[in-house]
Amino acid sequence: MDRISDIVLTLAATGGLSAAAHWDAAATESVLLAYKEFIDTEVAPGNGPADRAGCRIVDGRVRVPSPLPQTYKSYVDLGWHLLPLPVSIGGIGAPSPICCAGAELLAGANHAFQMLVGLVPGAIGVIERFGTQAQQDALIPELTAGTTLATMCLTEADAGSDLGAIRTSGTRNEAGEWTLSGEKIFISGGDQDLSDAIVHLVLARTGAPAEGVKGLSLFACHAQRSDGSRNSIEVVRIEEKLGLHASPTCQLRFAGADAQLLGQPGDGLKAMFVMMNHARLDVAMQGVAHAAQAHALASAYADQRRQGGRVIARHGDVARMLAEMDALTLGARAMGYRAAALLEDADLAAFLTPVCKAFCTDTASRVADLGIQVLGGYGYLPEYGMEQIWRDARVTRLYEGTNGVLAMTLVRRLLGGASETAFLEEIDQALSLSSSTQAHTGLAQLRADWMAAAAAVRAIPEPGMVAAPLMALTGLLYFGACWVRLEAAQISGEQAERMARLGQFVRDALLPDAAALRIRCQAPRRTENEDG
Amino acid sequence: MDRISDIVLTLAATGGLSAAAHWDAAATESVLLAYKEFIDTEVAPGNGPADRAGCRIVDGRVRVPSPLPQTYKSYVDLGWHLLPLPVSIGGIGAPSPICCAGAELLAGANHAFQMLVGLVPGAIGVIERFGTQAQQDALIPELTAGTTLATMCLTEADAGSDLGAIRTSGTRNEAGEWTLSGEKIFISGGDQDLSDAIVHLVLARTGAPAEGVKGLSLFACHAQRSDGSRNSIEVVRIEEKLGLHASPTCQLRFAGADAQLLGQPGDGLKAMFVMMNHARLDVAMQGVAHAAQAHALASAYADQRRQGGRVIARHGDVARMLAEMDALTLGARAMGYRAAALLEDADLAAFLTPVCKAFCTDTASRVADLGIQVLGGYGYLPEYGMEQIWRDARVTRLYEGTNGVLAMTLVRRLLGGASETAFLEEIDQALSLSSSTQAHTGLAQLRADWMAAAAAVRAIPEPGMVAAPLMALTGLLYFGACWVRLEAAQISGEQAERMARLGQFVRDALLPDAAALRIRCQAPRRTENEDG
Repeated sequence: MDRISDIVLTLAATGGLSAAAHWDAAATESVLLAYKEFIDTEVAPGNGPADRAGCRIVDGRVRVPSPLPQTYKSYVDLGWHLLPLPVSIGGIGAPSPICCAGAELLAGANHAFQMLVGLVPGAIGVIERFGTQAQQDALIPELTAGTTLATMCLTEADAGSDLGAIRTSGTRNEAGEWTLSGEKIFISGGDQDLSDAIVHLVLARTGAPAEGVKGLSLFACHAQRSDGSRNSIEVVRIEEKLGLHASPTCQLRFAGADAQLLGQPGDGLKAMFVMMNHARLDVAMQGVAHAAQAHALASAYADQRRQGGRVIARHGDVARMLAEMDALTLGARAMGYRAAALLEDADLAAFLTPVCKAFCTDTASRVADLGIQVLGGYGYLPEYGMEQIWRDARVTRLYEGTNGVLAMTLVRRLLGGASETAFLEEIDQALSLSSSTQAHTGLAQLRADWMAAAAAVRAIPEPGMVAAPLMALTGLLYFGACWVRLEAAQISGEQAERMARLGQFVRDALLPDAAALRIRCQAPRRTENEDG
Repeated sequence: MDRISDIVLTLAATGGLSAAAHWDAAATESVLLAYKEFIDTEVAPGNGPADRAGCRIVDGRVRVPSPLPQTYKSYVDLGWHLLPLPVSIGGIGAPSPICCAGAELLAGANHAFQMLVGLVPGAIGVIERFGTQAQQDALIPELTAGTTLATMCLTEADAGSDLGAIRTSGTRNEAGEWTLSGEKIFISGGDQDLSDAIVHLVLARTGAPAEGVKGLSLFACHAQRSDGSRNSIEVVRIEEKLGLHASPTCQLRFAGADAQLLGQPGDGLKAMFVMMNHARLDVAMQGVAHAAQAHALASAYADQRRQGGRVIARHGDVARMLAEMDALTLGARAMGYRAAALLEDADLAAFLTPVCKAFCTDTASRVADLGIQVLGGYGYLPEYGMEQIWRDARVTRLYEGTNGVLAMTLVRRLLGGASETAFLEEIDQALSLSSSTQAHTGLAQLRADWMAAAAAVRAIPEPGMVAAPLMALTGLLYFGACWVRLEAAQISGEQAERMARLGQFVRDALLPDAAALRIRCQAPRRTENEDG
């Protein structure tokens, strides 16, 4: 089954298509087919070569490897950067779930490239919501034109998961102009030579250190000043990494750099979360992208590689791995699209965003790992591309909040509140759509397992030791609910048979993990080392 | 707790120490301490640099990166290569479990180096068992002296898991002399510049292709002829790989190379399996080595890295990850030592070797993956060493039989026979040692889960789809049994408290997976693609 058919089917099954004629199934399919043709021709071929070449610093500036600058030129010339941007500012205005589909196609072909260009829609959203009219008028046109790309500058050496420890400071002079001083690390695309200009969205302290996250404000900080001179931002280094060698991960030193405050002092975290929730769903889609790519590669390999007189796709254990990869990919994709379709519901989005980010990225590693195993020894060699998927996918579980930090958010902030209520309603809605008794029973059992586990976790004062199993179970429940939607999709023929077969496989082979996860959540013990 | 204490405790708990004074706890500890000092000083420091430098071919010969040649010189000069060799040929004659401990220490410090030197004991075993006296007299002294290293040449481009398809041929001339012709791929250490000479043990066809594996024979083939000239063996290429860059993975072309037949024509597979079982247990220990190394690194990092005012080792989810890493490492190590202690029991060894290989190597990937997660973004950077562990460990699930092939062996050949009986007796022996009611109940439940799953798998004609879950459950059962031995160890104080705490964690957090695996084995469905 080809990728675009799967995507359109999944969009339809998860409420991701719009009733409006612009974005019905047929229109969406034709847009995505055209986008995929561009990606296959212009973006995908550079993925391996750019990773092998890597980034470097020349005269203090980052050079990303060929062909990414040329790729970016085509991307902008053909207007594909406009796909996720609002119509009001000259964009194409694709609905969020369709933007997710686009992000999946782009990230699957070239994760590094997608990261370089991917923060623009989120940055525009922040500027629209928090910027003054003058700031919007100044910043949005250059982002829409593609001459400027955006970054997100949060992390510092001693402030990773703990943003309250941020020390980069914003200072206002007598004329009311702000400057930034401090060092940020792990800044993706912190410098590059794709776009003429870069605007950094920087989280910095304007209050006292004791205020923690409440003393943080968000700034827009151009790499160039309006007179064309370089702003006081130095690229200290770029990181060597396990993967994503074509994505420059920068350490930036702001040394009294000119900047503009977005919103009010102290609004920093609130503004950053607007961008962060967008970014987290994007990361979930990077996970789906790697899973889909790994499955496509492994499936093609297994259909031609012969062993013992037949293709290995027909060997029992390989067939099991391929089914697992396919079912995981389809379900994770449905989770991402469904979450995107529900973004306007703030309570639900607060719950679904971390759950989808954690599940889809864990799934990416799992599917890529299976992909290596399907290829056997060849999976360990670069020429098949599987090992790059495995390396590149690994970072998605670490950035935009490690999956462990997200699990702690789930048990500490989301259980027992309005978000949980909204989540259970969403599960119940899927239950009501069940297309068979087995599908209904399977999901109802999973929901019961989750309720028991969540109750057990809520009952202990320091749930840290069972945060990860509860997060895994939560992801599995939502995965099961989205699979119920896929099985209930109005399709026929080969597609319907495949969904029915994989739906059964999901119940037989994937949902049983719930039994183990429930027991883990119900049997917590604190180790001697744990404080919480 | 330091590594050597853990190792000696585990040897004692698994019957790995000998009653003889040479290898009691005190003597073993002092030998291993000395070996570890050598390894820490001379082997470990080269691990990262050699991986970054990689191997290359110069004038048709492989050059391994510095400092491995110097490391090998020290290794032989100090006589450490003699540790696993029999006393009868001048070796130190450490018992198998203690050899496993040595292999773990060496592979943990430098997997590539351990691979380069690791096949000698197995090669000597094959030569002693299948070689003529003249062959033994010729080959064994050079291997014992360290002037010669050994390789194992099985795989061909179209004969990976399917040895019956091997096409490299052995031909005898009128004088009764053999020559080899054909190409072998994925030959670890197929050429190198550590030792003066190399002897390849080559599986080649002496019968008709239609005979499959029965037409295979084993040959010893020196890289140099006795007159000092190069034998007709060409290094066609070395593979670029995801990891293990310091280990040369060679494609070798045998073009009428002079060779000696070991044993009788047609004995090839039988002879190879003598070496293979040894190699598979070695691979299991490579898995343990990576797990132990990842846990040590992560634990040290988490004890110094502060976040939110306290070290992250005390954050709930990090504490959970560290406990999981520690418990998995200890149990996997115990499995390896115990299997080594039982190697003489052929039925039991046939069962335990693939189970330990699969479980210990899957554990290596899992623990290394957790290790990256503990380090967060820093886990993705090379300077902490964790990403190399993750990359290097990945190959252990692919070579010496992919873990999927081993799972198929379990369901097709080992279930229901003498090996299964021996395995269950081994489990029952552990049950009888249980030091607490919880330990006994936990293992008894696990055994019952396994019996139910195995019965379900035996009842279906084509069990390929459930081979992997049954293998995982089998590994978990043996892991649980070995943990019962660890908890029953005669220790006190801090060590005893740690074992009791981790033993409880094993029951709370790791053994529950059995519930899911049993359900998976009991609900098999064949996909449309599966033949078996």
